[in-house]
Amino acid sequence: GPGHRAPSRRAEGPRRVTDRRTALLVAAVDEIARNGTRGLRIEGVAKRAGVSPALIYHHFGDRSTLLQSALEHIGEQANAYTEHIEGNSRENLLAGLIDEIQDEVSVRTNSAAWGELRDTAIFDQGLRPTIAALTQRWVADIADLIRSGQHDGSIAVALDPEEMGVRLSALVEGISARWLTGILTTEQARAHLTAMAVAMLGPARR
Amino acid sequence: GPGHRAPSRRAEGPRRVTDRRTALLVAAVDEIARNGTRGLRIEGVAKRAGVSPALIYHHFGDRSTLLQSALEHIGEQANAYTEHIEGNSRENLLAGLIDEIQDEVSVRTNSAAWGELRDTAIFDQGLRPTIAALTQRWVADIADLIRSGQHDGSIAVALDPEEMGVRLSALVEGISARWLTGILTTEQARAHLTAMAVAMLGPARR
Repeated sequence: GPGHRAPSRRAEGPRRVTDRRTALLVAAVDEIARNGTRGLRIEGVAKRAGVSPALIYHHFGDRSTLLQSALEHIGEQANAYTEHIEGNSRENLLAGLIDEIQDEVSVRTNSAAWGELRDTAIFDQGLRPTIAALTQRWVADIADLIRSGQHDGSIAVALDPEEMGVRLSALVEGISARWLTGILTTEQARAHLTAMAVAMLGPARR
Repeated sequence: GPGHRAPSRRAEGPRRVTDRRTALLVAAVDEIARNGTRGLRIEGVAKRAGVSPALIYHHFGDRSTLLQSALEHIGEQANAYTEHIEGNSRENLLAGLIDEIQDEVSVRTNSAAWGELRDTAIFDQGLRPTIAALTQRWVADIADLIRSGQHDGSIAVALDPEEMGVRLSALVEGISARWLTGILTTEQARAHLTAMAVAMLGPARR
C-alpha cells in the first residue's frame, strides 16, 4: 500500500484531540485488516479502542467518514516502515518498494487494510476519489525517485517517471495480495518483487 | 484472474442438473462482482437467478459451499475470453495475459469476483486452499507456455518457467485492481500490462 506517503500538513487542532483521534484511527485500521472493510462496525472499533461507540460517532460522524479517515490515516503514515538507506536513488527506490512487504504486524496490517479499502472502492463509488488521490500520491513519490535517479545517474533516462510509478506501485500491490493470502512467504514475496522491479528498471548503472 | 483455466474433468451428473447448477453459479459470480463477497446473500443470488432460495440451498448446502463453488466456476471458465492466436508461444502468452483486461462485462465480472474471493481469503482461512490451488493452476499454465516458448525459440531459456508464472500472474492482478477501481482505463491498463510483461520476458527472439 501507499505506506510511505509524505505526512499530511493539515492542521488538526490541539494535540490531545489529535492523539485520541489517531488512537481511534489505529483501531479502525486494525479492525479493517482483521475483518475486512465490510465487516467494520463502529461497535467493534470502540471495543478495540476501549471507548464508547458515541465517541467514535463524535469524532467521525458515521461509518463512511470513518472509512475515509482510515484511508487517509494509512496514507499519512509517513516513512513509518520504509527506512531511508545510504545509497543512490535506485537503491532507495528498490528498498522502499520491497519494504512494503515485511514480517511486521504494522506493515501487514497496513497492507491488508489498504487492499481492503482499495477493493471496496470497486463497489463503493464514494471511496474512489480518495483511493485515486492516495494512489496518485504514491505514483508521484515513485516518479520523484525515478527522476532523482536519472539525475544521479543510477536510473536510465529513457524511462518515463510517471509510467514507472504506475507500474512499480501496481506490482507491489499484485505481489502483496499473494503474500497476504499466504500463497507466498515474506521471503518469496520480497525476492519476486525485487526481481520484477529490477527487470523493469533495467540493470544498475554505476 | 485465472480465467483461462483448463476445464474441469469432474463428472457432474445429468446435463440438465449441470445447466441449472451453472446458471446458479453465474448468478453468484455476478452478485459477488457487484456487491462483494461479504455482501453475498443466498436470497440475492436466488432473486438474480429467478429461483427460490430453497433451490440454492438444495444445490450448495450453505453460503460457504456456494462461495467455494463460485470460485471453482471462475477457475473452470476455460478459454472463455482468451482467444488462441496464430503465432509463437511468446505471442500467445502475451495475448492471454492482456486479454484478462477487456471492455467486456463477462471479463470485468470475472476479474472483480476473482479479486473479491482472493481477498476474502485474507480473512477467511477456509477459502485459502481453493484460492491457492486455482492460483497454482494459473501459474502452471503460464509456466507451460514459457516452456513451450523456450522450445520454439521465442522465449529465453534462462528464464525460470515457474518463477515467471508467479510474476506474470501477480502482475495481471496488480494492474487489474487499478482497472477495476477506475484508476486506469482499459486501454491504459492493457498498455501498462504489455510493457511490464515485455520487460520481464525480455525482447522478442526471432
